[in-house]
Amino acid sequence: MKKSIGPRTLAFPTPVWVVGTYDVNGKPNAMTAAWGGICCSKPPCVAVSLRKATYSYGNLVHRRAFTVSVPSEAHVREADYFGMASGREVNKFAAARLTPVASTLVDAPFVAEFPLVLECKLIHTLEIGLHTQFIGEILDVKADASVLGDQGFPDIEKVRPIIFGPEIRTYHGIGKYLGQAFAIGKDIG
Amino acid sequence: MKKSIGPRTLAFPTPVWVVGTYDVNGKPNAMTAAWGGICCSKPPCVAVSLRKATYSYGNLVHRRAFTVSVPSEAHVREADYFGMASGREVNKFAAARLTPVASTLVDAPFVAEFPLVLECKLIHTLEIGLHTQFIGEILDVKADASVLGDQGFPDIEKVRPIIFGPEIRTYHGIGKYLGQAFAIGKDIG
Repeated sequence: MKKSIGPRTLAFPTPVWVVGTYDVNGKPNAMTAAWGGICCSKPPCVAVSLRKATYSYGNLVHRRAFTVSVPSEAHVREADYFGMASGREVNKFAAARLTPVASTLVDAPFVAEFPLVLECKLIHTLEIGLHTQFIGEILDVKADASVLGDQGFPDIEKVRPIIFGPEIRTYHGIGKYLGQAFAIGKDIG
Repeated sequence: MKKSIGPRTLAFPTPVWVVGTYDVNGKPNAMTAAWGGICCSKPPCVAVSLRKATYSYGNLVHRRAFTVSVPSEAHVREADYFGMASGREVNKFAAARLTPVASTLVDAPFVAEFPLVLECKLIHTLEIGLHTQFIGEILDVKADASVLGDQGFPDIEKVRPIIFGPEIRTYHGIGKYLGQAFAIGKDIG
C-alpha cells in the first residue's frame, strides 16, 4: 500500500542543467534548470522550463536560442549559485569565475569549464502554467576531450553529471554502473 | 577547446521512467521512457515523449491518462525489458512478473513493485517530430513507506532511481550526496 504525498513535482532523477543565453545588450547569462529533459530523437530536441520571472526567460524569447551546459560535480556550488542569483542584478559568470564562450552555431553562450554542452535553436514555446517550456533543436553537442570514452562519446562516469532531488532539495553524484541498456532485460519474456 | 559530437540526444542525466497505460480493452501496459522530465511547478506537470509506433502512444491518446512509475535499481532488468518489448504482442506486466495496480485518480495502472509513482492526467500533446510529447498534470505522487525520509518525502538514496546515459546506452545508480540545493552556492557572488 503506497502512501499519498500529494500533487507535487516529485520524480527522480531530475537533471542539473545550466541554460546559457544572451540578454538584449549581449551580456551572457546562466541559470540552472532542473525542469527539463530530452524530448525528441528526430530532430534531436531538448526541453527546458523557465518561469516568466527569470531573466533568462526574456533572453530566450528575444534571442530564440540557448545552450545547455552540463556541470560536473566539481562545480556543484557554481551550479547551485546559478539557480539562485538573477542575471538582472549581477553578471553571474563573473561572480562564479566561470567563462562564457559564444556558440558559433546559435546566438547563446555556454560555460567553458563544464564538460558537456548542447547548442540549441528554439523551435517550440509552450505555456503550461507557472513555467513556460522551451524546446530547442540540438544543432550540436560538444564535449571536452578529457571526458570522451572509447566510442568517442562522452563517458557519464567522466562527465560526472549532478542529479537533483526535488522537494528534498539535494544534489547527488552519478553512482555505479548497473548494466547495458537494450541488453540486460533481453532474457525476460 | 571542445570536440563536436554532432546533433545528438546526448545529455546527462536522463531518467528511466516506466509509463503505465491501459489499452482499449483495459489491458495494462508499461513502457520505459528516458525522454521526459518535470516541466511545470504549478500545476505540477511531467512530460514524457513517445514515438507514434509504440503501443502506449495509442493508449495514451485514447485514455488521456498515464502514470510514471520510478523503478529502483533492483528492477533494472525489468525496466530494460519494458523498453524493448511491445504491449501489442505481449502482456509485459505478466512477462516481467510485476503487478499492475489501477490508479484511483486517473485511468491508468502503475507498477506495484516500484517505490515511487506519479498519477497523471493528460493536459497537452505536442507533435515535435519522431516523438510526440505528452504533458500530464500530476494529480498525486505515491510512495512506499519504506522509502520515505525524515520529512515525509521519498529519500532518493532509498528510492535508488536509475540513470540512463543516451548514446552510450548504460544504466547507472544514484551516487554520493553532494550537498543541499539553494544552500551550498550561497557564498558565491
